[in-house]
Amino acid sequence: MAKTTTLKEFESVFPKLVEDLLDHAKQYNLADEFVQWYKASLNANTIGGKCNRGMSVPDSVSLLLEAPLSEEQYFEAATLGWMTELLQAFFLVSDDIMDSSITRRGAPCWYRQPHVGMIAINDAFMLESSIYTLLKKYFRKHPAYVDLLELFHEVSYQTELGQLCDLITAPEDKIDLDNFSMSKYQFIVIYKTAYYSFYLPVALALYHQNIATPKNLKQAEKILIPLGEYFQIQDDYLDNFGLPEHIGKIGTDIMDNKCSWLVNKALEIATPEQRKILEDNYGRKDKTKEAAVKKLYDELKLEQIYKEYEETRVGEIKKMIAEVDESEGLKKSVFESFLAKIYKRSK
Amino acid sequence: MAKTTTLKEFESVFPKLVEDLLDHAKQYNLADEFVQWYKASLNANTIGGKCNRGMSVPDSVSLLLEAPLSEEQYFEAATLGWMTELLQAFFLVSDDIMDSSITRRGAPCWYRQPHVGMIAINDAFMLESSIYTLLKKYFRKHPAYVDLLELFHEVSYQTELGQLCDLITAPEDKIDLDNFSMSKYQFIVIYKTAYYSFYLPVALALYHQNIATPKNLKQAEKILIPLGEYFQIQDDYLDNFGLPEHIGKIGTDIMDNKCSWLVNKALEIATPEQRKILEDNYGRKDKTKEAAVKKLYDELKLEQIYKEYEETRVGEIKKMIAEVDESEGLKKSVFESFLAKIYKRSK
Ligand SMILES: [Mg+2]
Ligand SMILES: [Mg+2]
Ligand SMILES: [Mg+2]
Ligand SMILES: [Mg+2]
Ligand SMILES: [Mg+2]
Ligand SMILES: [Mg+2]
Repeated sequence: MAKTTTLKEFESVFPKLVEDLLDHAKQYNLADEFVQWYKASLNANTIGGKCNRGMSVPDSVSLLLEAPLSEEQYFEAATLGWMTELLQAFFLVSDDIMDSSITRRGAPCWYRQPHVGMIAINDAFMLESSIYTLLKKYFRKHPAYVDLLELFHEVSYQTELGQLCDLITAPEDKIDLDNFSMSKYQFIVIYKTAYYSFYLPVALALYHQNIATPKNLKQAEKILIPLGEYFQIQDDYLDNFGLPEHIGKIGTDIMDNKCSWLVNKALEIATPEQRKILEDNYGRKDKTKEAAVKKLYDELKLEQIYKEYEETRVGEIKKMIAEVDESEGLKKSVFESFLAKIYKRSK
Repeated sequence: MAKTTTLKEFESVFPKLVEDLLDHAKQYNLADEFVQWYKASLNANTIGGKCNRGMSVPDSVSLLLEAPLSEEQYFEAATLGWMTELLQAFFLVSDDIMDSSITRRGAPCWYRQPHVGMIAINDAFMLESSIYTLLKKYFRKHPAYVDLLELFHEVSYQTELGQLCDLITAPEDKIDLDNFSMSKYQFIVIYKTAYYSFYLPVALALYHQNIATPKNLKQAEKILIPLGEYFQIQDDYLDNFGLPEHIGKIGTDIMDNKCSWLVNKALEIATPEQRKILEDNYGRKDKTKEAAVKKLYDELKLEQIYKEYEETRVGEIKKMIAEVDESEGLKKSVFESFLAKIYKRSK
């Protein structure tokens, strides 16, 4: 039987990887002062999240094998998982600078920590480089080494495309709802989030098991990208309709001028008068204006529209999962496990 | 006979590469607005320099072959050359943000151009990704493909180590000469500049010609790293002692609190009284204080010390070149060509 990893178990692998990365830096005779800086950046920016992406690598490997992982298998799969977390760290450190964000995971963003500032940009680069250091150390002999390198390159590039579109479409300081559209929304969500969060972990698991055939990769992409899109739409829904005590924060998408599913759906169905309400109130750091938008969302019955969307989408995804061809080693259970974690979550 | 490339010839290759990169972006259905943004970033950040690094790839290949390059050979070698320029663009775009620089190559830095701002960070990432897109397109079938990928990863990481050390040692806004030392200076120069500017182009030429044996790479590194160090020391020397009409700018290293060879040498030989002059005047945006440092440099006879250093260093490098073992296809002429471009340059 497949066994699900725990955050504790997954996190227990990280100190060894940090040690590897610091040993590697020391080989260049990097003075201790700078080794300590790198260590602080690795720990501050990679640890502390929920690690859903990272943990889904060993979980997927275990589901593909239909067996619990040996210690060595777990270490390898978790190492690949930590690379997805390093990739995310690279993007979050820089995203926080680009978005002028204040906090991340309950602490000041890395670039806002004492003495860091814009050095955070170089720290982000080093987080990215850490992926390739670890790939070389642990997977250079793996038959899929080149594919793993190319996978990380491609997913990084896809995420950058999504970021580019997001940054130009929804700058926090320039509100222009004409910029928004459901098609841009879809592009942003798929590229900025779905590839690295959903497709990458499963592709890594397939490569790890040497069953990343073109057919298996295509099937995984076909299901995981819509699943990732659904996940983000749900995230946008919860930002407004979720309970703060469940989601662990008070949503700020309206005030932050976010190109959210809700505002794009509202723009699609609003009358000219309702659109005017959005134009006058969206994206302002003002509780009254935010309340006006929330009221409009209720009038437009966005909660119900979301729930209908969710049921339809989940039905489609379940159908796709049912149709998965397992003949080349892919397993439906991999996708069922992802879906079970997402469907009707409240946090 | 080897033929030396011209900037015009080298630049003529770039539009094709831009076309390749935009075609690649369009495969992801990136909307035209964003394709145009990527194009603008590629052109603004990669074109307009002297392209010494990039051009040295086809020049080195030609010297290794002892023959002019066919059109196809030239295109391939120049494409590798443009990858070194893309790597530099990635680092310069982000370095300018980290250093709060104002202009680059006579125009406002990319992040200071209209509507760009911090999006420049993501643009830098995309410049980096462009390297791997081109490598995959043109070199996936090359026997050294994996080595080329690893070479770019390693040189990127080395440059990041140099940047880290530089950023922490010499922040423009915090003057502390106790932070400086000749050994830190050497580390910064070697990692921040020498690897990507000197070692990388020759290593690429060797891989291109399938003669990147461990011995050849080692010999190249052994000569090119001291050569790159000498180049940067000369750059620091010219910043103060060069003629503005030759170097094309007025040096600002003293006012910018740069961890320059000159200040490190001065710190090495200064009496306590002279050190006090440095402490009171170095790194201030003040012409009178700058003049006091310049006067001290003259008193310390730094010009003469530099010239002695240069003669000794160049002698050592010439000796190393003379000792190069050409039996595995490496050619002394590759290094002689680099040295000839640098020795006693005035700009
Ligand atoms: Mg953000
Ligand atoms: Mg963002
Ligand atoms: Mg959200
Ligand atoms: Mg700079
Ligand atoms: Mg700098
Ligand atoms: Mg200089």
